[in-house]
Amino acid sequence: MRLLPRTAIIMILFTATTIMAFTRRPQRVIFFGDSITAQGARPGGYITRMKDALVQKGLANDYELIGAGIGGNKVTDLYLRMDDDVLAQNPDVVFIYIGVNDVWHKAMFGTGTDIDKFEKFYTAIINKLLDRHIRVILCTPAVIGEKTDFTNQQDGDLNAYSQVIRNLAQKFHCGLVDLRETFHTYELRNNPGNKDSSVLTHDRVHLNDNGNQLVADKMLEALLAK
Amino acid sequence: MRLLPRTAIIMILFTATTIMAFTRRPQRVIFFGDSITAQGARPGGYITRMKDALVQKGLANDYELIGAGIGGNKVTDLYLRMDDDVLAQNPDVVFIYIGVNDVWHKAMFGTGTDIDKFEKFYTAIINKLLDRHIRVILCTPAVIGEKTDFTNQQDGDLNAYSQVIRNLAQKFHCGLVDLRETFHTYELRNNPGNKDSSVLTHDRVHLNDNGNQLVADKMLEALLAK
Amino acid sequence: MRLLPRTAIIMILFTATTIMAFTRRPQRVIFFGDSITAQGARPGGYITRMKDALVQKGLANDYELIGAGIGGNKVTDLYLRMDDDVLAQNPDVVFIYIGVNDVWHKAMFGTGTDIDKFEKFYTAIINKLLDRHIRVILCTPAVIGEKTDFTNQQDGDLNAYSQVIRNLAQKFHCGLVDLRETFHTYELRNNPGNKDSSVLTHDRVHLNDNGNQLVADKMLEALLAK
Amino acid sequence: MRLLPRTAIIMILFTATTIMAFTRRPQRVIFFGDSITAQGARPGGYITRMKDALVQKGLANDYELIGAGIGGNKVTDLYLRMDDDVLAQNPDVVFIYIGVNDVWHKAMFGTGTDIDKFEKFYTAIINKLLDRHIRVILCTPAVIGEKTDFTNQQDGDLNAYSQVIRNLAQKFHCGLVDLRETFHTYELRNNPGNKDSSVLTHDRVHLNDNGNQLVADKMLEALLAK
Repeated sequence: MRLLPRTAIIMILFTATTIMAFTRRPQRVIFFGDSITAQGARPGGYITRMKDALVQKGLANDYELIGAGIGGNKVTDLYLRMDDDVLAQNPDVVFIYIGVNDVWHKAMFGTGTDIDKFEKFYTAIINKLLDRHIRVILCTPAVIGEKTDFTNQQDGDLNAYSQVIRNLAQKFHCGLVDLRETFHTYELRNNPGNKDSSVLTHDRVHLNDNGNQLVADKMLEALLAK
Repeated sequence: MRLLPRTAIIMILFTATTIMAFTRRPQRVIFFGDSITAQGARPGGYITRMKDALVQKGLANDYELIGAGIGGNKVTDLYLRMDDDVLAQNPDVVFIYIGVNDVWHKAMFGTGTDIDKFEKFYTAIINKLLDRHIRVILCTPAVIGEKTDFTNQQDGDLNAYSQVIRNLAQKFHCGLVDLRETFHTYELRNNPGNKDSSVLTHDRVHLNDNGNQLVADKMLEALLAK
Repeated sequence: MRLLPRTAIIMILFTATTIMAFTRRPQRVIFFGDSITAQGARPGGYITRMKDALVQKGLANDYELIGAGIGGNKVTDLYLRMDDDVLAQNPDVVFIYIGVNDVWHKAMFGTGTDIDKFEKFYTAIINKLLDRHIRVILCTPAVIGEKTDFTNQQDGDLNAYSQVIRNLAQKFHCGLVDLRETFHTYELRNNPGNKDSSVLTHDRVHLNDNGNQLVADKMLEALLAK
Repeated sequence: MRLLPRTAIIMILFTATTIMAFTRRPQRVIFFGDSITAQGARPGGYITRMKDALVQKGLANDYELIGAGIGGNKVTDLYLRMDDDVLAQNPDVVFIYIGVNDVWHKAMFGTGTDIDKFEKFYTAIINKLLDRHIRVILCTPAVIGEKTDFTNQQDGDLNAYSQVIRNLAQKFHCGLVDLRETFHTYELRNNPGNKDSSVLTHDRVHLNDNGNQLVADKMLEALLAK
């Protein structure tokens, strides 16, 4: 078989590379969570802010950010809808941001999630994603109440459930955005009056502008880390 | 092809029938549930009473009854352990008897099961069993408190969750042992003093001798119905 | 001392009686309760409807109706504020309409009222009122959810706490407006579709126009009964 | 009237003083609380240990220690039974040791105490005692779970309710035994393994020998401080 002349080879390689560059599918990133994530996809929300930041960095074509948050969701809800809302979309990266309602609904409806089952369903979600070679980044639940003197009713549980998530991130070699830790550090510096809300949230749970920006910064850092 | 002589045919059929009769695997029946079922496998428990009844009916070799109850279990626990504790045993029949803790843990630990998720996980369990052509018989949760004047705290929820189970039995053409209805009818006749326990339970929830016998009778009736 | 002539005595008595008749203070009636009563004092509310009905009956000057409802109140709240909000106003009649939050807050905040303490604080309120010779009329809590098939989550507790109130009414010879019973009877006739709300409430708990009218009718009947 | 001779006066004074010294009533000290206090009155319990310590200090005749703890009690229970169980005994000193169940029963029965009402009923108890010139010493609730990494479910609430008690002690110039603080300091030093129980409790809440001794030491210190 005759070899192609050198020029021809170079042209072919150049053309192929060009096509790849222009047709390269952006990384599809799904944010899988509760009402905080549902609001994050709105104007001013953390996902919207991440998109803006990617534009500024000239990376707008490299990432496609998709919100998949539903109000009131707990880890069991994520598990039940992950085939339809996540896997069916063939994501490259999934942020899992869940836990507030698993803790909060204990007091609000009597239907919170036992911590052992929180870990089991969370593990099942991670396994399904890793089986498909999807990059997984875990987030700890930030706050229910912003007081800094350890008197928020759910502080104990939020700490315990966050520890479960940190352990899972380590065990499965997933990324980690430790919002619980991030918020705590931020509050110690910026909430000298021990306020219950309005520092990073507008209602003790859902993010205000500062909160959305802080989450966007940390998530973007994690996304681009690899 | 030459035909076998008549005598040979008769001998072959007789032998085959005999072998089948002696080697026929009994129907494997798993009782999948919570502490009521865990206790049901003990002496005096409803599963033990069903075994005794099968012996008396000369059906001891036709059914193998296996308890798979764990204290505190809710529908999500059953879902998480069904591969190991049920499917791995290749059952022919599965009784699902769950719901008390899904309701009760709302008040006791704040970790009850939302009714919509109760239905979704229950459905997932049924689907996995039916996919393997396993016969499925559903049971409604009987009582938390035996008062007959509708003042047991969880009466409303037990009625609502039982209705979910009745609807699932109809939708998936499963068997149904409506213990909620059975107990209610029994209590109306046998609990004129509006006692909170000691008619069919010893502690408002777990079965006493009368309760175990009543459940055994109803479950056996359902098992042999087909 | 000389006696007054007969004529003078008659004139004096006549004048005094006439003055009393014209200056007779109307009966002061306080409605002591939660958000249902707070809303009852608004236009269209049950207290407002009672005022209208008294006008139509020509009894407008005989009764002064005063709302003393505060949202979220339980029996312990009534107990704590009864000196300021009830006794300080020297009422002739007090309607006590409490219990919904005592039951509901179990699931909503984990701070419902134990049934034994519900009875004790309710008793303490009644005793304080009776000590001052105030006429007391008790009301049972109507509904949390209007379903008629006994599947409202709090039905069991509402029945139990209502029974406590009925027993107290009997024990202390108080009036009773059995709204739990009244609503149940009404729903059986007028809620064939087993709706969760919008028959007598607009949100499962707070009264719509029909609900306010029904409560007004029953309370007026009780008020005028004596 | 003739004056008594000097010698007679001296003799009378001497005799009176002697009688007073020998018949001086010991200070009556009531421990008003929940199951921790009920158990504190048993052998090995913190009240029993305080009695032993008083004997060793030669102060056995100066103080009469009386347990008035009832299992499951919350602040509203103390309020309801204080006339019978405390005031009727004419105490000189009352230790109030309550709060664990006010917090814990939120998750266990749905009948915890709202923090604002905790303060109101606690205040009412203090006022009734101070009106009678009884010395009052407040105790903060120690622990529900002994983990030191802030992951005990009720940590947030225990901190918040303890802060209420500290503020009340300051406001009403009462004594304070800050068991929450004492236990926390002790656990940091003596629970390096982050154990959930068995350092100062045997079941996360009720005191083991170490716990009873620690409470006895701190309470005795407070009692003798004045």
